[in-house]
Amino acid sequence: MKKKKKVNAAILIIGNEILSGRTQDKNIAFISKWLNLKCGITVDEVRIIPDVEKKIINNVRSLSKKFNYVFTTGGIGPTHDDITAQSIAKAFKLKYGFHTEAYKILKNYYGTKQFNDGRKKMAKMPVIARLIKNPSSAAPGFITKNVLSLPGVPSILNSMIDNCKKYLIKGLKVYSETINLFTVESNISKKIGEIQKKNQKYVEIGSYPFFRLGKIGVSIVTRSTSKIKLKQVDKEIKKFVNKKKIQILKI
Amino acid sequence: MKKKKKVNAAILIIGNEILSGRTQDKNIAFISKWLNLKCGITVDEVRIIPDVEKKIINNVRSLSKKFNYVFTTGGIGPTHDDITAQSIAKAFKLKYGFHTEAYKILKNYYGTKQFNDGRKKMAKMPVIARLIKNPSSAAPGFITKNVLSLPGVPSILNSMIDNCKKYLIKGLKVYSETINLFTVESNISKKIGEIQKKNQKYVEIGSYPFFRLGKIGVSIVTRSTSKIKLKQVDKEIKKFVNKKKIQILKI
Repeated sequence: MKKKKKVNAAILIIGNEILSGRTQDKNIAFISKWLNLKCGITVDEVRIIPDVEKKIINNVRSLSKKFNYVFTTGGIGPTHDDITAQSIAKAFKLKYGFHTEAYKILKNYYGTKQFNDGRKKMAKMPVIARLIKNPSSAAPGFITKNVLSLPGVPSILNSMIDNCKKYLIKGLKVYSETINLFTVESNISKKIGEIQKKNQKYVEIGSYPFFRLGKIGVSIVTRSTSKIKLKQVDKEIKKFVNKKKIQILKI
Repeated sequence: MKKKKKVNAAILIIGNEILSGRTQDKNIAFISKWLNLKCGITVDEVRIIPDVEKKIINNVRSLSKKFNYVFTTGGIGPTHDDITAQSIAKAFKLKYGFHTEAYKILKNYYGTKQFNDGRKKMAKMPVIARLIKNPSSAAPGFITKNVLSLPGVPSILNSMIDNCKKYLIKGLKVYSETINLFTVESNISKKIGEIQKKNQKYVEIGSYPFFRLGKIGVSIVTRSTSKIKLKQVDKEIKKFVNKKKIQILKI
């Protein structure tokens, strides 16, 4: 893994079941945290779209131009609504068909007798794609140009994610601190805004209300690629909080 | 509420905390289900973007052109990173400032003494916007053209959602049935694909693997605006399932 200053990614969730609200997505937070912590890569945009070929093609094309990497989830299984692989092939005008290595893996896994048409379909993808190994259910993901395609089932996706690492350029690690305060946002917003303005270039400050133990609170989250700048900003926030006699919640 | 054949919407989630995976989004599934069940409106795209003015402007503009409605969540609180209202004003080239009615509501709620700058900020928005009342914490959401802006905190958003209804044109109700099978997708994918192809025009069939009671299963979800077509397709699927002697899981 080489190091690059700022590396970003987009996530493209493909699936009617997420859009309709039938299924609660769990992959966005998982992939984003993994990219952040393990690879120093920031997710800058997420899109959720239906299983419609034209939409997959358009989104893959535009996101792959705008971001260093695109992670797609969903639509690589054996059924009629699994059209991610063929759509990506079309998006990049690549040959779609049986991938020699993927075919071998799946044939081995199922045995000749159980290797039916549905299962064979999971070996179909852009033929020049490189594979992302699947330790839990064999059917591999794949990388086409800068687009990494993973399945939608969270447990299977989670088991595969580390196998994406070798295809990624690592970015600078983003450090983060959280200060939880028993106060309301409007009580601190002015000063936090000033601190943010002063440190705009190096530190990003977020403010998120919460309810805990029957009380209202605010999480102040600071993020930076510089540990030193992060500490400085944290110190300034804590100084202000102490002066205002706001209670800090230790977790 | 007038009735229109097909009404669609996009959801635009604004917030670094969702993108970074720090916070698990709960608003997408909630809004989507509500739109579907209560309004007959289908969510056709979701985007999650950071608190960056230019990105908010571009996405609001493009989504509001492409869909009947856009729901934004997040970024309408009192802190420096709450920039949704001003960005939407810029997107539509509208005057941004204190909204007379919103200002009155908030002043009433907090009382003159507690009505500080942070809280006043929540009365700033496109001045011609119409308000979406907030029964739980007063600060209103608002609708600008076809864009409805709601807060990011799920409990507050949930309390406000019914107040969006009067601004929406109702679409045709989408009916849905689920058949849960103890089988694997590749065992049924061929036949289900054929049934989908035959009924393409009226019924959408989705296939979603699950793990339950230690066994692998598949949920077959059918959706249609026609109750009759839905029943016909369901009958055909059940006939096939019985013939194949696949166990149906009753929930």
